[in-house]
Amino acid sequence: MRERERERAKQGKTDRTMATRKIIIDTDPGQDDSVAILIALGSPHELEVVAIVSVAGNVPLWRTTENALKVTDLAGRPDVPVYAGCARPMRRQPITAEHVHGTTGINGVDLAPASRPAQDQHGVDFLIDTLRASEPGEITLCVLGPITNVAMAMVKAPDITGRIAEIVWMAGAYFEVGNITPTAEFNVYVDPEAADVVVKSGVKLTMVPLDVTHRALATHERLDRFRALGNRAGQAVADMLNFSERFDLGKYGWIGAPLHDPCVIAYLLQPEIFVGRHINVEIELAGTYTTGMTVADWWGVSKRPANVTYLRDVDADAFFSLLVERVGRLP
Amino acid sequence: MRERERERAKQGKTDRTMATRKIIIDTDPGQDDSVAILIALGSPHELEVVAIVSVAGNVPLWRTTENALKVTDLAGRPDVPVYAGCARPMRRQPITAEHVHGTTGINGVDLAPASRPAQDQHGVDFLIDTLRASEPGEITLCVLGPITNVAMAMVKAPDITGRIAEIVWMAGAYFEVGNITPTAEFNVYVDPEAADVVVKSGVKLTMVPLDVTHRALATHERLDRFRALGNRAGQAVADMLNFSERFDLGKYGWIGAPLHDPCVIAYLLQPEIFVGRHINVEIELAGTYTTGMTVADWWGVSKRPANVTYLRDVDADAFFSLLVERVGRLP
Amino acid sequence: MRERERERAKQGKTDRTMATRKIIIDTDPGQDDSVAILIALGSPHELEVVAIVSVAGNVPLWRTTENALKVTDLAGRPDVPVYAGCARPMRRQPITAEHVHGTTGINGVDLAPASRPAQDQHGVDFLIDTLRASEPGEITLCVLGPITNVAMAMVKAPDITGRIAEIVWMAGAYFEVGNITPTAEFNVYVDPEAADVVVKSGVKLTMVPLDVTHRALATHERLDRFRALGNRAGQAVADMLNFSERFDLGKYGWIGAPLHDPCVIAYLLQPEIFVGRHINVEIELAGTYTTGMTVADWWGVSKRPANVTYLRDVDADAFFSLLVERVGRLP
Amino acid sequence: MRERERERAKQGKTDRTMATRKIIIDTDPGQDDSVAILIALGSPHELEVVAIVSVAGNVPLWRTTENALKVTDLAGRPDVPVYAGCARPMRRQPITAEHVHGTTGINGVDLAPASRPAQDQHGVDFLIDTLRASEPGEITLCVLGPITNVAMAMVKAPDITGRIAEIVWMAGAYFEVGNITPTAEFNVYVDPEAADVVVKSGVKLTMVPLDVTHRALATHERLDRFRALGNRAGQAVADMLNFSERFDLGKYGWIGAPLHDPCVIAYLLQPEIFVGRHINVEIELAGTYTTGMTVADWWGVSKRPANVTYLRDVDADAFFSLLVERVGRLP
Repeated sequence: MRERERERAKQGKTDRTMATRKIIIDTDPGQDDSVAILIALGSPHELEVVAIVSVAGNVPLWRTTENALKVTDLAGRPDVPVYAGCARPMRRQPITAEHVHGTTGINGVDLAPASRPAQDQHGVDFLIDTLRASEPGEITLCVLGPITNVAMAMVKAPDITGRIAEIVWMAGAYFEVGNITPTAEFNVYVDPEAADVVVKSGVKLTMVPLDVTHRALATHERLDRFRALGNRAGQAVADMLNFSERFDLGKYGWIGAPLHDPCVIAYLLQPEIFVGRHINVEIELAGTYTTGMTVADWWGVSKRPANVTYLRDVDADAFFSLLVERVGRLP
Repeated sequence: MRERERERAKQGKTDRTMATRKIIIDTDPGQDDSVAILIALGSPHELEVVAIVSVAGNVPLWRTTENALKVTDLAGRPDVPVYAGCARPMRRQPITAEHVHGTTGINGVDLAPASRPAQDQHGVDFLIDTLRASEPGEITLCVLGPITNVAMAMVKAPDITGRIAEIVWMAGAYFEVGNITPTAEFNVYVDPEAADVVVKSGVKLTMVPLDVTHRALATHERLDRFRALGNRAGQAVADMLNFSERFDLGKYGWIGAPLHDPCVIAYLLQPEIFVGRHINVEIELAGTYTTGMTVADWWGVSKRPANVTYLRDVDADAFFSLLVERVGRLP
Repeated sequence: MRERERERAKQGKTDRTMATRKIIIDTDPGQDDSVAILIALGSPHELEVVAIVSVAGNVPLWRTTENALKVTDLAGRPDVPVYAGCARPMRRQPITAEHVHGTTGINGVDLAPASRPAQDQHGVDFLIDTLRASEPGEITLCVLGPITNVAMAMVKAPDITGRIAEIVWMAGAYFEVGNITPTAEFNVYVDPEAADVVVKSGVKLTMVPLDVTHRALATHERLDRFRALGNRAGQAVADMLNFSERFDLGKYGWIGAPLHDPCVIAYLLQPEIFVGRHINVEIELAGTYTTGMTVADWWGVSKRPANVTYLRDVDADAFFSLLVERVGRLP
Repeated sequence: MRERERERAKQGKTDRTMATRKIIIDTDPGQDDSVAILIALGSPHELEVVAIVSVAGNVPLWRTTENALKVTDLAGRPDVPVYAGCARPMRRQPITAEHVHGTTGINGVDLAPASRPAQDQHGVDFLIDTLRASEPGEITLCVLGPITNVAMAMVKAPDITGRIAEIVWMAGAYFEVGNITPTAEFNVYVDPEAADVVVKSGVKLTMVPLDVTHRALATHERLDRFRALGNRAGQAVADMLNFSERFDLGKYGWIGAPLHDPCVIAYLLQPEIFVGRHINVEIELAGTYTTGMTVADWWGVSKRPANVTYLRDVDADAFFSLLVERVGRLP
């Protein structure tokens, strides 16, 4: 293995991209979740998608599970196992977002029925067993929805926390403010207690908040590049994003919808196109108007210890070029 | 009615005890938890103890698990399986109470090492699997510590809620105020989010709060009755309660320590010696000084719907007679 | 003055009753407020009622002001000035209690129109000016409603706090739980921010909570004693209490209504018939279900510093004998 | 309309400046408060400064009062009366900001001792009496510090609320996030209960938050323009801003310090150079990490009714040109 690494170094590559990174995608697809899954599956050299775990979020669990199955089929990867996780948040009643994503969660495309069912094992137990069977630092969790499954696993089996390489989570909003309330981003708002468990766990955690994703707008020109790929995946990406833009464009007056979840995968592939800080982030659980807010101490005024790498900006052109390239590798 | 009761007495059974009730004891022993387990095991006609599930609470999980194993051994019942549940609350850091229970949790007795280990399966999964395999209404949960395991099971597998016959939980304080804080009782305070999940779940729930247990004081005279039984279990009960009384007597100036957890088992055996009301109870999660309080609307001023049978009083003499009799049936 | 005191000592009187205590009554009458005013005015040797300040509470300010004027008239004391204070709480919207007190606040009697108007000066400014003109420790505040006026005076003129001899306030509930919500007593609930200002001010503060007042029930036998006095005041007291008992008896199933506010005056006259502790009391302002609760750390579990003398019991017979005697001295 | 405007231009006035607007400045100087006072006094055609009311904030009350006296002297306007208001917030302990403003509050200049003392009347009573004596809509309140005085006046005399023309308040932060905590701006954080009273009062309220003021940076070039005026006031402005920039430049890495409070006066003079929306703003009082936050529903996601005109941007060049011109009119 040493030999191989030296070999690679000669070829001018960095260590990180050399060794394929094992990831589990925890997600509630959702159009942009689906695009994120596709990007990950289009990057087999860098990322090995060990499995997908579904969670209730944008739509109920049975739909997010089904969507995950369909999207892996679309990518020609029915070998990727899908595990159904939690059907509700840790403490609160479920909240969904059909007003954004449509009733199926991936309105805009009409994908073929899933080729196979989800695995029998509960997603939380899959996380626990897989992490326990892995080397510490071997597995990275990419979380694209409410972080219920990961927090449940941490509570049920506290020993797993130390085995997680990193969690990269699409979550939060600070400068870009909330979307589901004036202060809270949807993924955190749905299960803030789970978020609190994770930010306090000591795990290596990177948050990809609206501050970043609102700078990665899928303009019509950018959408056209997916469509122009000519493959099935590119067409589906364009169709899904075309649907989901309806909501944000009406609200913000933007020239394109933000691509939230794909930022997580892009960060794993090209962290250098993102800008962030290692700061303290706390989850507000008790506010009358602020429950679910990610209180990100960007300016360091609180003196609380840093626990999150909080991203704030992205090179949007590089980001979209990356996305287009990776979707282009799919069927 | 007298006539009918005498009739039944001849048949050697009352209506209620006729069908043996299947219970799972979820517990963090604890001296009074141990006594509760002994009472339950001393009542085989009325109660079938399917299993014991341990939880972190009075002392850490490994100790409560070990104590559960030892106490079932003491009762001559190594056949009762013990499953280790959650080692921490759902959201908060663990809080223990060695200042009350001693370092082992059952200081006062020196029980023999456990004859066997705990089961391999996680306590939360045992709850889920057993409830799924049972008839709706077949299994009653007796919860003697923080209610983490039950809430985790409800979040992980929401379908089990409808299968639980009843939860009888030693928890809460209202007129008798809190013990760990001025407003909160220990079992709720340790994991208030779990408590909130359960009180909002729609399950049939009976709370046995300090309002009751503070009226069931183990005076010296009453302790002597356990010792006078002459059996191993009676001696252990007397020794454990003798230890645990130190704390409460110093604090409240009482003539004996309250027997919290045995009230749960006694309620299953003789509900008629308890007084309560079906009222609304909410768990305060956001207060500066009141987090973990069981806000019990005894006087019905809030107009919130009833969700808990909240006990407030007990016939202490009848209670102790029952306890002594049942401990007397053990080795 | 020394000479006079010695003179009194010879006559077998105690120091405390010897020097007449100057009090300002801050109140929202209310039947029981009215009785308290009458008791105070019936005790001229012990208490000099410098003035009455009204506040919004049981009924709106204009009514409580009018009622204070009428009740002093009833006592034959139109010389006692009445100042109108705050018409609303410090932060929240006003809450009134006509369901308890009737639309006038003193339903049950039909008193003559007030013989004179209230003073021009605002009640808050009267408090400030009078305290500034007094010796430190000269003036005691008897507060029978929401404590808005006192807190407003403390914020507007922080220097007055050190001049107040003591505040004796009918407020709070702990063992006896709340009346307006499951956890909050009305006077605190209406303006909890004001309560917080006062309990944190460092002033000498005695709280007379429901824990006490619920033990001073105006049974029919006791009411009859007022009526039997044969004077105008006695008849009015009996009539007012006869009205106000309707509410509590229906709710609690009691044999008579509690006499809340007169306990404050009785405490000034005969503190020895009350039992209390000097403990920490905090006002909950942030709870979902507990806002306005007086968190009274009776058992000293919080280690927070003592700031309130919190009364818990009263010799009800002695209390009523005192009341009857003092009302008997009025016209 | 064009014709009419030209007509007016000939007369040398616009409609808005024709009627001089009566303002009371409620303030805690503070370097930028001082500049705001100077701008107001340099605009006598548009603004009649009826009085200045001081409040505890950046520095204690005695200092803010003294500073207000000195700054009016500097402007050659010892005729402007100064009233001392509240020395503390409504509910919380005072918080000051000497780390930003220096020990005097206006470090950077050494102004001559005040030529006269503050008025005898309390600032809160001055507000009440003046508003009661005015026509409804006659007087505008310019609040540059914590809004304690105004809220106290509203509680003490609710009738004044309807007489206020408008409150323009330098307060809050949303997109630009907090300065004293990660979520709260200083003026709101110091007395959030007062802020809550005012935003809920129904008064016409314009907030000038950090979102605006952080876009009005006093670069060195801009500071030089004040110095170049050659008058006493210009020199003092340059010196004060030169001091206060130290803090913000170190923190934010900016090219100049923001000019918070002068934006309030500039908004009165030239509202057309500001951009804002009429939206719902609530004050968070209960959050663990978010107390004092101005939850500004810029995107209208909460459906709560609009109660505040919330400014978000300013034409910084126009703003500084206005400031320089007005300071230039002073001695």
